[in-house]
Amino acid sequence: MTILIKNVLLGQNHLDVFIGGDGRFSRIAPNLDLAADTIIDGTDKAILPAFYNLHTHAAMSLLRGLGDDKELFSWLSQDIWPREETFDDEIIYWGTKLAALEMIRSGTVGFSDMYFEQKAIMQAICEMGMRAAVSFVEMDLFEPDKTKAKKEDTEKFLTLENPCPERISKFLAVHAVYTTSEELIRFAVETAERHNMKLHIHACETRKEVDDCLAAHGCTPIAYLEKLGALSPRTILAHAVHLDDRDIEIILKHGVTLCTNPASNLKLCSGAFMFKKLWDKGAFITLGTDGSASNNNVSMLDEMKLAALSAKIQSGDPTAGSAGQIFQAATKNGAAALGLDAGVIAEGKLADCLLVDLNNPLLVPNYNLISNMVYSADSSVIDTVICNGRLLMLGKKIDGEEEILRQAKKIAAKLA
Amino acid sequence: MTILIKNVLLGQNHLDVFIGGDGRFSRIAPNLDLAADTIIDGTDKAILPAFYNLHTHAAMSLLRGLGDDKELFSWLSQDIWPREETFDDEIIYWGTKLAALEMIRSGTVGFSDMYFEQKAIMQAICEMGMRAAVSFVEMDLFEPDKTKAKKEDTEKFLTLENPCPERISKFLAVHAVYTTSEELIRFAVETAERHNMKLHIHACETRKEVDDCLAAHGCTPIAYLEKLGALSPRTILAHAVHLDDRDIEIILKHGVTLCTNPASNLKLCSGAFMFKKLWDKGAFITLGTDGSASNNNVSMLDEMKLAALSAKIQSGDPTAGSAGQIFQAATKNGAAALGLDAGVIAEGKLADCLLVDLNNPLLVPNYNLISNMVYSADSSVIDTVICNGRLLMLGKKIDGEEEILRQAKKIAAKLA
Repeated sequence: MTILIKNVLLGQNHLDVFIGGDGRFSRIAPNLDLAADTIIDGTDKAILPAFYNLHTHAAMSLLRGLGDDKELFSWLSQDIWPREETFDDEIIYWGTKLAALEMIRSGTVGFSDMYFEQKAIMQAICEMGMRAAVSFVEMDLFEPDKTKAKKEDTEKFLTLENPCPERISKFLAVHAVYTTSEELIRFAVETAERHNMKLHIHACETRKEVDDCLAAHGCTPIAYLEKLGALSPRTILAHAVHLDDRDIEIILKHGVTLCTNPASNLKLCSGAFMFKKLWDKGAFITLGTDGSASNNNVSMLDEMKLAALSAKIQSGDPTAGSAGQIFQAATKNGAAALGLDAGVIAEGKLADCLLVDLNNPLLVPNYNLISNMVYSADSSVIDTVICNGRLLMLGKKIDGEEEILRQAKKIAAKLA
Repeated sequence: MTILIKNVLLGQNHLDVFIGGDGRFSRIAPNLDLAADTIIDGTDKAILPAFYNLHTHAAMSLLRGLGDDKELFSWLSQDIWPREETFDDEIIYWGTKLAALEMIRSGTVGFSDMYFEQKAIMQAICEMGMRAAVSFVEMDLFEPDKTKAKKEDTEKFLTLENPCPERISKFLAVHAVYTTSEELIRFAVETAERHNMKLHIHACETRKEVDDCLAAHGCTPIAYLEKLGALSPRTILAHAVHLDDRDIEIILKHGVTLCTNPASNLKLCSGAFMFKKLWDKGAFITLGTDGSASNNNVSMLDEMKLAALSAKIQSGDPTAGSAGQIFQAATKNGAAALGLDAGVIAEGKLADCLLVDLNNPLLVPNYNLISNMVYSADSSVIDTVICNGRLLMLGKKIDGEEEILRQAKKIAAKLA
């Protein structure tokens, strides 16, 4: 399948964009005279890189709006965990599809997911046409039986058939240092190394996590993870709110990727990510929404604005978290962290992109499109979404949307 | 004109809502068998109060995205003031209409505006069908010639024909204690009292404003305004970020209305409003977006999420700024502050309301619609907007939108 987008705004120029059958941008130039399976009129639209959501729990979309405005522990124990216990593969399949729908509508084409029932998750993502990294989550609550079971399940995950290797990769995840034993973390590290997989870890989300780690191990979670060999360029740390100067040095030394989740951090009062300090020191920063139960959506547009504002208030500097930096974290950096040759609109790159509606009042005037996307836009500006050279949404229409909503409402009626 | 909305979700029930020719909710009951000029199918939609934006500078929509990520003074002096100097009544007319378009799309039916060229502003609002309070702004930079000129212009404003008294009221504004002389503030207070007008004031936005006031007058801006008689139940203070305990006592004693503007306060690093402390003490709190140059939109949906998150991080308490409190500030409290018998969906109240699309993924599942509106929704969920019993938007269509966008783009090309 080939796509030709005619007369679309790219930077300051109106150009034609041809996407080849290999799913890459093939030609970008004015007035291309090429045949294509689909021709899209780009008049009054701009083409932009799509978003990559580097930390989420997609199927938690089904828990949206349950237990807001509560303390973390009562929220988890009263509202979330009892319902998650009832989740089977069918619920997770539809929950993942509901999140995918919302992500596509708000311009996201790829995400890093940390949840359970990976077979159902991969199937849902495959059918939605998105990209994702699907993690198996190592967590044993320090119970030896669970450690053993998790090791066995890890092997099953590794051999689990991937229905779409072109768009889906497998990651390993370590839930957190306060839920996962040293033995299981070391196992995850070795397994990830052996299979050249990325390692996705919740780290330094709360002050309590750091204090508890200091008490238990005599060092911060970052120093502890370093000791266990868990930090490398293949590591992605979600949250990373509470870092001291030595933690930052360690993160930089090992070329670790960070993923900031401002909505969740603010909503649960976890703290504010040190965006400016880390960016200025050269840390590699990506952006994620966390799950819908603590956000309460998976819109990277909402998240970009929150990341910029959080960066400013955290540093006390209005120049912190500039629109350009935040947009880069949400696009190019996210693509790189997912191992993709994507994230910019250029010949030869994977064709992941958005067409945004320049007649949406949120983008008028258009002095600075990146600023408009970060500070003004919401999902109403997203007209068309392309992933791997295929249309996920055209003119706001997504195939199969009605059925997903019908199934999600049916499941929600039981969870309420 | 009468409107009958059939089978719409109100709270937990599906009802019919009849809006009479007097612009009020006339009957709300199941299966109403009434003739109406317009019948709307409310299936898969919920009816909600509309939003009131209690502090904005509407025409600054034309400056959206200019000078982001800068210090306040360089932003104002390099990017904003030089362009504002070129603003004439035509530019302000179209800028106000552009903001109105965006407000309607995101569910706002009324706003409190603080800008210049009030005749053009009132004309634009009148034509858009919205409600507003239009302020004349007292500001003399302590120059006696300007004080005199402002007094004369105030009289002109008072006699300026109001093209739509049913929906538009006149307020007086005092720009701020650091830009307006004691003489002019006293004049504004007396004039507002004599004409029973509300008084809209920027107060305690920055730490510097408070420090400078302490140096100049030996008291905080709140104490200074009290001394000048400027605080009463007719007073609306925008921002009110930097308050001490005595300031809070004074605010409560005089029954002053507060308007918080979290996006602007975070973006300019002004600080965070003490929502929880003030709400718990019984302060009357409303919500506003400030202008698009420091936000960068006028969406009350964005603003509600930011207000809730800002309340949590400011207080360190995840239960602060609950969805219900924030929604009340944005609807019922805003209506009351504009002097309207509106803000709830009930028989006899002014018919200002929204129909939201329950098939938008951002509202699925719908365990708690108010939570979904505060934490998840964006403008894509707003289907229909009614103000004073008249349709401003039906099925996402607003009359005259194309012309407004065309004119705004033409003006922006000159301002760039």
